[in-house]
Amino acid sequence: MKFLAAGIAIGLAALGASYGNGHVISKTIESMARQPEMVSKLQTTMFIGVGLIEAVPILAVVIAFALVF
Amino acid sequence: MKFLAAGIAIGLAALGASYGNGHVISKTIESMARQPEMVSKLQTTMFIGVGLIEAVPILAVVIAFALVF
Amino acid sequence: MKFLAAGIAIGLAALGASYGNGHVISKTIESMARQPEMVSKLQTTMFIGVGLIEAVPILAVVIAFALVF
Amino acid sequence: MKFLAAGIAIGLAALGASYGNGHVISKTIESMARQPEMVSKLQTTMFIGVGLIEAVPILAVVIAFALVF
Amino acid sequence: MKFLAAGIAIGLAALGASYGNGHVISKTIESMARQPEMVSKLQTTMFIGVGLIEAVPILAVVIAFALVF
Amino acid sequence: MKFLAAGIAIGLAALGASYGNGHVISKTIESMARQPEMVSKLQTTMFIGVGLIEAVPILAVVIAFALVF
Amino acid sequence: MKFLAAGIAIGLAALGASYGNGHVISKTIESMARQPEMVSKLQTTMFIGVGLIEAVPILAVVIAFALVF
Amino acid sequence: MKFLAAGIAIGLAALGASYGNGHVISKTIESMARQPEMVSKLQTTMFIGVGLIEAVPILAVVIAFALVF
Amino acid sequence: MKFLAAGIAIGLAALGASYGNGHVISKTIESMARQPEMVSKLQTTMFIGVGLIEAVPILAVVIAFALVF
Amino acid sequence: MKFLAAGIAIGLAALGASYGNGHVISKTIESMARQPEMVSKLQTTMFIGVGLIEAVPILAVVIAFALVF
Amino acid sequence: MKFLAAGIAIGLAALGASYGNGHVISKTIESMARQPEMVSKLQTTMFIGVGLIEAVPILAVVIAFALVF
Amino acid sequence: MKFLAAGIAIGLAALGASYGNGHVISKTIESMARQPEMVSKLQTTMFIGVGLIEAVPILAVVIAFALVF
Amino acid sequence: MKFLAAGIAIGLAALGASYGNGHVISKTIESMARQPEMVSKLQTTMFIGVGLIEAVPILAVVIAFALVF
Amino acid sequence: MKFLAAGIAIGLAALGASYGNGHVISKTIESMARQPEMVSKLQTTMFIGVGLIEAVPILAVVIAFALVF
Repeated sequence: MKFLAAGIAIGLAALGASYGNGHVISKTIESMARQPEMVSKLQTTMFIGVGLIEAVPILAVVIAFALVF
Repeated sequence: MKFLAAGIAIGLAALGASYGNGHVISKTIESMARQPEMVSKLQTTMFIGVGLIEAVPILAVVIAFALVF
Repeated sequence: MKFLAAGIAIGLAALGASYGNGHVISKTIESMARQPEMVSKLQTTMFIGVGLIEAVPILAVVIAFALVF
Repeated sequence: MKFLAAGIAIGLAALGASYGNGHVISKTIESMARQPEMVSKLQTTMFIGVGLIEAVPILAVVIAFALVF
Repeated sequence: MKFLAAGIAIGLAALGASYGNGHVISKTIESMARQPEMVSKLQTTMFIGVGLIEAVPILAVVIAFALVF
Repeated sequence: MKFLAAGIAIGLAALGASYGNGHVISKTIESMARQPEMVSKLQTTMFIGVGLIEAVPILAVVIAFALVF
Repeated sequence: MKFLAAGIAIGLAALGASYGNGHVISKTIESMARQPEMVSKLQTTMFIGVGLIEAVPILAVVIAFALVF
Repeated sequence: MKFLAAGIAIGLAALGASYGNGHVISKTIESMARQPEMVSKLQTTMFIGVGLIEAVPILAVVIAFALVF
Repeated sequence: MKFLAAGIAIGLAALGASYGNGHVISKTIESMARQPEMVSKLQTTMFIGVGLIEAVPILAVVIAFALVF
Repeated sequence: MKFLAAGIAIGLAALGASYGNGHVISKTIESMARQPEMVSKLQTTMFIGVGLIEAVPILAVVIAFALVF
Repeated sequence: MKFLAAGIAIGLAALGASYGNGHVISKTIESMARQPEMVSKLQTTMFIGVGLIEAVPILAVVIAFALVF
Repeated sequence: MKFLAAGIAIGLAALGASYGNGHVISKTIESMARQPEMVSKLQTTMFIGVGLIEAVPILAVVIAFALVF
Repeated sequence: MKFLAAGIAIGLAALGASYGNGHVISKTIESMARQPEMVSKLQTTMFIGVGLIEAVPILAVVIAFALVF
Repeated sequence: MKFLAAGIAIGLAALGASYGNGHVISKTIESMARQPEMVSKLQTTMFIGVGLIEAVPILAVVIAFALVF
């Protein structure tokens, strides 16, 4: 049961993080093409955003590692 | 059963937090590209918003940690 | 069974609260970029709204804590 | 089985209330940005609306508390 | 099994009522911002509508109470 | 099994009735704001419509009551 | 098993009938607001339509009654 | 198992027929409001259409009756 | 198990046929209102289309009858 | 188990074929109303298309018949 | 278990192939109505496309036949 | 269990490949109708694309064959 | 259980890869038709993109092969 | 159970990563066609974005490998 829990946790976390990151990064690329003069500012916000999004999934990864090893 | 509960809780929390954060941050980047003169104000609101969104998922993480360790 | 119930309750609550908050905050950021002169009023409403949204999920957190500890 | 029922009830109630409130509040913020002169009226309706929405979820919370404690 | 039934009934009822009420109230707020001179009429219809929507969920609450207590 | 059936029946009925009523009433409010001179006619149709929608859910409530009491 | 079958049948029937009726009635109200001179004709068609929609759900109600009583 | 099968069959049939009929009838009402001079022709097609849609669900009702009685 | 299979088969077939027919017939009615001079041609195609759509569901009905009787 | 497999196979096949056919035929009718001079060509393509779509579902029907009889 | 596997495989394959083919053929018919002079080229591509889409479902049919006979 | 695994693998693979191919080919046909002078280039890309899409499903077919034979 | 795991893994991987590739390639074809002078650059990006998308599914294929053989 | 967990984890991770990458890369190709002079900058952001998206799924792959080998 321990392993199944780890599988569900990491699976949903990977699904969520990919969805959130994909949404943010694709919006950034779209905005960069519309406002070329703001490239650096948009990229900085994108890096911060990706970091914030991955906060909870990384904790899910930690729990999954704790359950598996 | 304890471990499965932790897996479901952390998994759904990661999914929800990623969705909410991804929505907020991508909207922020879109708005920054449209209103370059409001960058700092939008970023401040974004940081507050991400903090508010992660309130409940972090509690879910706490419960999952309590169930696993 | 007690732990599974806590996991489902906190998981769905985190999912719901993230969805609702993400919706409200992203709308606030969009409106701030369109109406810069109304920033403070919109932010106040956002804070009240986030507080109202988190009322029921926080009760779900309470129940989950009661089931786990 | 008692605890699982409480978890499902409170979880779905939190999901529903967050969805409904998030919808109402984000619409209010959008309308406030479009009609600044109607801010107080819209906020009053928002408070009444949130109260009406939370009527049934709060009853679900009561049942969940009755099942857990 | 009795308690699980109560949990499902109250959970789905809370989900449905929140969805329906959220839809009606957000439409009312949007219409109020577009037609300020019709505020009182729209609010009256909103109150009647919310009452009509909550008819069946309240019966579900009654059944859930009957199953729990 | 009897109680579970009642819970599913009343739960789905409450979900359906809330969805249908919410759809009808929000459309009525939107139409009232667009055609103020037709308010009474639209409200009459709304009341008839809500009555027609709740015909089958009320029968589901009757069955659920028969199963519970 | 008999009671569960009745619960599923009446539940899905109520869900379907509410969806169909809600769709028809909200379209009628929208059309009435756009073509006030056709009110009576649209209402007649609405009543016929609601009757036709409820044909199969009413048979589902009959089966559910036959299973419960 | 016999009764459960009848419940699933009649439930899905009622759901499907309501969806199909609701779609057809609401489109008819919308078209009648746009082309008042074609009312009778559209209504005739609607009646034929509803009859054709209910062909398979009625057979599902027959099977459900055969399983229940 | 035989009866459950019949219930699933006829239920999904009724759902599918209703969806397909509802789609075709509502499109026909919409097109008739836009091109009144093509009514007979569109209706002929509609009848052929409904016949083609119901080919596979009718076979599902045959199998369900074979399983029940 | 043999009968359940036949029920699932024929049910999903009927659902899929109805969806695909309904999509093709409704598009044909819409196109016929827009381009009356191409009626015969569009109908020919529609017949070929329906034949191609029903290739795999008919094989599913064959398997279902093989499992039932 | 062997038969259930065949039923799931052929069912999902029929669902997928119908969806893909329906999408391609309806797009072809729509394009033919807009560009009558390209009919033969579009039909050729449609035939190739349908052949390519049915490659994997036909393999699923082969596996299902191998499991059933 | 071996056969069920093969059924799920081939079924999901057929569903995915049909969806992906259907999307690509329908877009190709739409683009061909808009840019007749680019037909050969678009078709070449379509063939490469279909080949790339079917890479993973074909591996799923291989695994399914290995499980069945 | 080993085989079922391989079936789920390869099935979901094929579904995901087909969805991602189908999205990328159809967008490429659409862009090629709009910007004929950029064909080679878009195709290069498409090949890189397809390679990046298939990174994780190929690892899923490796795991599935390891579980089956 | 160990193998099933690996299958679910790698399957959901592949599904998520494919979705996220497909979204980002298709947006990049669309933007490249609209802003040919920004090709190199957009591609760099795309590579960074794909790397960030695959962070969590790769960890899921690691866990799946740890569970299988």
